[in-house]
Parts: sequence; structure tokens; C-alpha cells
Amino acid sequence: MKEPTLEDIQQTHREISDHIHHTPVLTSRKVNNRIGSRVFLKCENFQRAGAFKFRGACNAINKLSESELTNGVATHSSGNHAQAVALSAQMNDIPAYIVMPENAPQVKVDAVRGYGAKITFCKSSLQAREEVLENIVERTGATFIHAYNNTDIITGQGTAALELLEGHPQLDLILAPVGGGGLLSGTAIAASGISPNAKIIGAEPEVANDAYLSLQTGKLQPVQSTNTIADGLRTSLSKLTFNCIQHHVANIITVYEQEIIEAMRFIWERMNVIIEPSSAVPVAAALYHLQRNYDQIGIIISGGNVGLDHLPWQKEG
Amino acid sequence: MKEPTLEDIQQTHREISDHIHHTPVLTSRKVNNRIGSRVFLKCENFQRAGAFKFRGACNAINKLSESELTNGVATHSSGNHAQAVALSAQMNDIPAYIVMPENAPQVKVDAVRGYGAKITFCKSSLQAREEVLENIVERTGATFIHAYNNTDIITGQGTAALELLEGHPQLDLILAPVGGGGLLSGTAIAASGISPNAKIIGAEPEVANDAYLSLQTGKLQPVQSTNTIADGLRTSLSKLTFNCIQHHVANIITVYEQEIIEAMRFIWERMNVIIEPSSAVPVAAALYHLQRNYDQIGIIISGGNVGLDHLPWQKEG
Repeated sequence: MKEPTLEDIQQTHREISDHIHHTPVLTSRKVNNRIGSRVFLKCENFQRAGAFKFRGACNAINKLSESELTNGVATHSSGNHAQAVALSAQMNDIPAYIVMPENAPQVKVDAVRGYGAKITFCKSSLQAREEVLENIVERTGATFIHAYNNTDIITGQGTAALELLEGHPQLDLILAPVGGGGLLSGTAIAASGISPNAKIIGAEPEVANDAYLSLQTGKLQPVQSTNTIADGLRTSLSKLTFNCIQHHVANIITVYEQEIIEAMRFIWERMNVIIEPSSAVPVAAALYHLQRNYDQIGIIISGGNVGLDHLPWQKEG
Repeated sequence: MKEPTLEDIQQTHREISDHIHHTPVLTSRKVNNRIGSRVFLKCENFQRAGAFKFRGACNAINKLSESELTNGVATHSSGNHAQAVALSAQMNDIPAYIVMPENAPQVKVDAVRGYGAKITFCKSSLQAREEVLENIVERTGATFIHAYNNTDIITGQGTAALELLEGHPQLDLILAPVGGGGLLSGTAIAASGISPNAKIIGAEPEVANDAYLSLQTGKLQPVQSTNTIADGLRTSLSKLTFNCIQHHVANIITVYEQEIIEAMRFIWERMNVIIEPSSAVPVAAALYHLQRNYDQIGIIISGGNVGLDHLPWQKEG
């Protein structure tokens, strides 16, 4: 698989433009004052199906041939990619087979079901996911849409940064969360093409720091733990996303679980915007871990799919 | 006091344009499907200080003379107007004296304090508020900025609908919550000027239905209970807002408390947007009480200032 280019992302943006939400960029003086920079939040939590993932899934399915579409699509995902594939499949009137880990948040499971997809649950390890998926693909003939080890997915995800940078080409730092690396890869390719002076930093949970370790060691490191509250970031980089990140990303900041919760609440309270824990990871990086001052920071808010019955800052009860 | 005109609202919009957020209009297919119309949410919960009230307060203080500004400004408010006046005063570097009912939400009290205003608490009756305020005005010489019985306030509030209608002039229904009536008045004046075919309906809690009763009887009726969860809608219409509403508003829909909570959760879950109970009132009207179908509905989402420690759909714990 080849790394996409800025031109690929621009072309894709034209192709999916009628299907996606062109999400707003929100600002808040309270947030600016606290971080000490002008901060621009690209709100992909207002994207269709509640996360940036719809951009990639929409593009990937768009690009399939008639014969690849015939038997539907399949994927494994803890949630947002699952929803995005399910919705895109529904729009194309083809079946979607989704393998979800048994610890996926209920709100995401319900949404996938709501889009009419067929769900199969499995253990939360990557091995279990892949085995179950392989069986399904063999049985149904569905086309596998990987969540990030897929050029068309990365190209789609990069369109969020494209929109952000079109309105704000002068950003000097762009932060995006990194799980499997599709969003960070697309963001970095778009940003380094449009705003070569902007620094691109990925943010990930300290307890799932495979991207950090991979970049440090120059060798792809699988994630060791999936215990982070940031349920969208429990996956490891792929060869493709690792390459993109090596080429275009300055470094990875890791943040602690408590910082993720505080950053999430901070955005909920100060901006009245519902962001999920994964989206709070780059916010936590900006709040607690920047090594120097930046004038204008762009943050990709990846999604907002979170259960409302129990919030992480509330005591058990 | 005279009723403002569409031209007043347009002129005001030019004057406050650099100070306010031009808030986004959000849409969701899930919401459209549920309501059976295309629905456009004008998100004033993303306005500065978290509510449309900043538009009016900013304009009212803008319009004061040097001598009226000298000793600062004063008001009584359960929250959002208080925050708006406090922030506008801070921006103008003048003192703000705010009388708040003792049952005002903590999150709103904290925010008012955060903008550097001096707070005096009182019983939650209108009489108590007015007496305490009168004492403060007498003692300090501050200029009283009424939350809605003020032409400049109504003019400012109308700028939200102005922005909504500029992007969506073809709306055939506009819903706004009604408490004191400033937002509904400004909305109705702007809408009837720009889109004369649009119907304008106010929405208020059944347990605080003074606007409904006033319009039914043709006589200003004070609110009898302040027990609604929609804490921004516990006030009565004034003579000025009653006149505006009589001239421009088709009718008032009243909604039940449980419907307010359901509508609030619906928007949180489906759109990832934090709205306060008062904003959920017109959403509940659209969900449960429309008498006929509309093609395109605009809803003014008034604010998003709500405490996050306990949400109304959560069991006590």
C-alpha cells in the first residue's frame, strides 16, 4: 500500500464532500487563556456517526468496485470505525459485518446496530478480532475495510485537517490523537503539504504508548495494554501508518489517564461540547505537556460517542 | 420603551459583530428523522459566556453613555444574563453588581464570580430580586440592565435569529424558548421581517406557563411557580416583551418536565452538544407537540450552562 499525498486528500475531499459534514471549528477565550495560545478545535464529534471515522469509511467504500461491493463489507473495531462502516454500508444499501470487542462501549454497540449492521462479539485482543473477522470474510465474501491500514481510509481521515487548514493556514502546531494512526497520518500528510511550518504532534495515552515507543525505537511496537479510558486508542500502528507518521510527525506526547478525564471535563464545561475520552487526549497534551509556547494550535477533536449514564468524573453509584 | 425593528437588529448586529461568536448552525439526520422535518439548530450554547444573553448584554452596555458607565452596571438574573452582564462589564473594565436567587445553579454562580462580578444572593421571588437590586443601585449608582424589559437587550438577542435566517431564509417554523421573552421577541421581530412566511412559536414549561396564559387571555399574567428544571425560564414576561410577542408570535407551546429532560438527553446523545434544560424546551416542543408537519424548522438553542456532576436523567446517588 502506498502513502497518500496531499493531492490524494484534496481529490478525495471533492469526492466525499456531499456526504460528509463540513464540521465547525470552535474557539473559546477561556480555553485560550488556560493553554496560553489561540486554540482551534476541529469538531469531528459533529461528523456523521459522531466521529472523523465516517470520512475514511465513506471514501473507502466509495472506491470499491461493483464486484467488491456485492457481498458487503466487514471490519473489526471498538466502535467509531464500526459505526462509520455501518452507516456507509447502509447508505450504499449493502450489508456490513462488524466484529466488536466485548468491552466496546454500549453506546457504540447500539449505534452500530442502529445502522443495521450485523455484529459479532469477540475477546478484546487483536488476535481474537482478526480471527473472527477472517472467518466472517471467508463465509460471506464481504470486503474487509481495515480501520487504518488502508490508503483510502487515511486519505479520507486527512480531509478533516484539510478543512481546518483551509480556514486556518497559519497554525503552528497541530495535535491529533493516535490509536491505529489513520487520523494522525492523514492529518500529518495534509498539514505538511499545506502548512510546512506547522509542527505535527500525536497524542496518546501513556498506558497505550505504542506509537511513542515505535517512533522512539524506529521499529513498530505493538500496544501492550488496552486498559486506557480512551477506548478509540487501544489499537497499534500498522506498517502503513507507522511509515506516514515517521515521515511527517515531529513527536508523540503521552498523557496520563487522570489528565484525559480532566481535559474531557474541561472541554465539556468550557465549550459545551461533548467529546469522548480519545478526543480529550490531544487536549490533555496541550493543557499539560507542551514544551514551548505556540501561537496558534489546531486540535482534531476526533469524536463524541460516549455513554451518558455514567461519566468518568462521577463517583460510582 | 419602544419595540425594536428589523433594521435596529441589523444595525446592532454590525455593531457587536466583532465581540460575539457567530455561532454555527448544526444539523443531524437522526434528529431530522425523529422529528420528520429538516431541523437547524442555532447553537447559542457556543456563544460567549455560554448563552445568547451575551448578545443583548453586550449591546446594552455598548449603548450606554460615558456617565451611565462610570459607576458600573447591575442586574438580577438566575444565571445566563448575569454571566453575560458580568463578562460585558469586565470587557469594558467597569464593575458589575449581580443579584442572584439562592437557587441559581452553582455552575452559573461560579462563572459570574469568574468574570469578576460582585454577587448578592436573595430569595428566588421577583419581589426579593427587585428589592435587593434597588438597594444596590441606590448605594452604588450603577446602571440597571434589565434582562429583557430593555429595547437594546431585545435588539441584541434578535441577532441570533438574524444569523440563522441569513443562512436559512426558507425556514417555515422557528422555535425559541420563552422566559422573560427577550429572546423570543428579538427572534420574532427578526424572523417576521426577513421571512414573513415563517411561523414563530415560543416554547415554555407547562409549570411556568405565564407566556401561554398571557397570550391566551390577552393580559399580562405573572408566572406562578418557579419550580421548572428549565432554570432560565422562571421569569415572567414584561410589558415590552408581551407587546412584541403579541405582535409577532403565532402561539406558545407548553411542555412537561419529563419531556424537557428527554429532549435534553436526545440532543446530547444524538448531536454531542451540551444544551441546558431551557434550550431543551423548544426541542421538546418539536419532538412532542407540533400540530402539523413543517418542512424546515429552526430552533434557537439558547444556552449550555449546566452542572456536570449530576445530570437530570441520572438516579440520585
